Amino acid sequence: MEKLSIVKIGGNIIEDDTSLNAFLKLFANLKGKKILVHGGGKRATAIAAKLGIESKMINGRRITDAETLEVITMVYGGLVNKNIVAQLQASNIDAIGLTGADINSMTSEKRPVKDVDFGFVGDVKKVAHNSIDKLIKADFTPVFCAITHDGKGQLLNTNADTITSQLAVGMSNLYETSIYYCFELDGVLKDINDKNSVIKHIDSSLYKELLEQGIIADGMLPKLENCFDALNHGVKTINMGNTNMLTQENDNFTRITL
Amino acid sequence: MEKLSIVKIGGNIIEDDTSLNAFLKLFANLKGKKILVHGGGKRATAIAAKLGIESKMINGRRITDAETLEVITMVYGGLVNKNIVAQLQASNIDAIGLTGADINSMTSEKRPVKDVDFGFVGDVKKVAHNSIDKLIKADFTPVFCAITHDGKGQLLNTNADTITSQLAVGMSNLYETSIYYCFELDGVLKDINDKNSVIKHIDSSLYKELLEQGIIADGMLPKLENCFDALNHGVKTINMGNTNMLTQENDNFTRITL
Repeated sequence: MEKLSIVKIGGNIIEDDTSLNAFLKLFANLKGKKILVHGGGKRATAIAAKLGIESKMINGRRITDAETLEVITMVYGGLVNKNIVAQLQASNIDAIGLTGADINSMTSEKRPVKDVDFGFVGDVKKVAHNSIDKLIKADFTPVFCAITHDGKGQLLNTNADTITSQLAVGMSNLYETSIYYCFELDGVLKDINDKNSVIKHIDSSLYKELLEQGIIADGMLPKLENCFDALNHGVKTINMGNTNMLTQENDNFTRITL
Repeated sequence: MEKLSIVKIGGNIIEDDTSLNAFLKLFANLKGKKILVHGGGKRATAIAAKLGIESKMINGRRITDAETLEVITMVYGGLVNKNIVAQLQASNIDAIGLTGADINSMTSEKRPVKDVDFGFVGDVKKVAHNSIDKLIKADFTPVFCAITHDGKGQLLNTNADTITSQLAVGMSNLYETSIYYCFELDGVLKDINDKNSVIKHIDSSLYKELLEQGIIADGMLPKLENCFDALNHGVKTINMGNTNMLTQENDNFTRITL
């Protein structure tokens, strides 16, 4: 199977044009077929504030009411996505910006109301891997923002990490798929207070050990759980590391495999 | 040659969800290959005002400074475009939303400063008809908003009528192309005060007559000049008429041919 790299960047780097442009040059240099996924929550929060819309969070999660969804659609789908596409075109990457509504690429279901009503938030149900592959086969590079749709005309806000892993699982039907989660840390740390304690390789058995020793906790725990879930559903390798270190050749990232 | 219909809707209909959804159903029912082009100026003006950004116009034309371009990118490329795409998906049209930056589809040049500095406004230089055709051949329906790019990373605001005619000229290399300009009037009127005076068919010789008689003037003059320019560059037919009358079979529109 041919290789496919799916790279995810978070909201922090999108705030800083210089860092973003440096990252996009690294992304442009990645070899082979590739997909970019981006968030943009911080920018959305700032523009919502300017528009007088309060960003409501419960347990660190955004409540997406109708007017917040409008802001997200403007900021993720328009401002952030189209500027990234234009920058990539300037680096000779034939990028195409997408939400899950475009080519019906990612269908989701509005999250049912239990204890909390998260509003217009979608949980991914289906990735149209064959339609997405038509774009890849045409030598276009998809750039996904964190928006899906329900197929009935409703756009839905969807976590960018989830979009990334669901996309990767879907594309694993057609490609040997690797994920690159890019963030501020150099990888998964053995000692959270020591930036130099990056674990180079985590497999299933080391993961169990680390869990038992309580080394993986807090924010990293759900991330790694999601990683092993994606690996168990066909994704080949997951890499986590610093946005400004992205290459396919280096071993700067934490590599995660079954 | 296979037929291709390119439909353009203006800013007014986008303001009204009920009219927009009714129009999108008519668009969905059009037979054969098709492309939609939309503006969104009124919505952009409203959101700019909410953000405290003054919309500067000279001779009825928007001056696009950096912060206005941000609003346009959010509103045209995000809010309006992605909601149209989601609605079309609900009508089983496999839509894909695009700016000129996506798949490098429309490259433009920042308008040179003469008497007026229009800011980040682009004049179309190149339509990548073969790239756009890859989407059409894959059975996707392109939905263009009124944004292009300069190929060097800069997005540019571009008149939606111009995008429509340039797209149509470009696609005429591959298809027998018809344009449908949809607006509030039933077509080109012989008597501007009589809504029932729609001229059913204008060809080159009638156009000359109407010009000589001074029947075509004001806003309609540049529109028709653009039409005949497009027809002289390969577009087969141009239709002008009421948004809520769009079908390929009826003769409600003014039909314009060489």
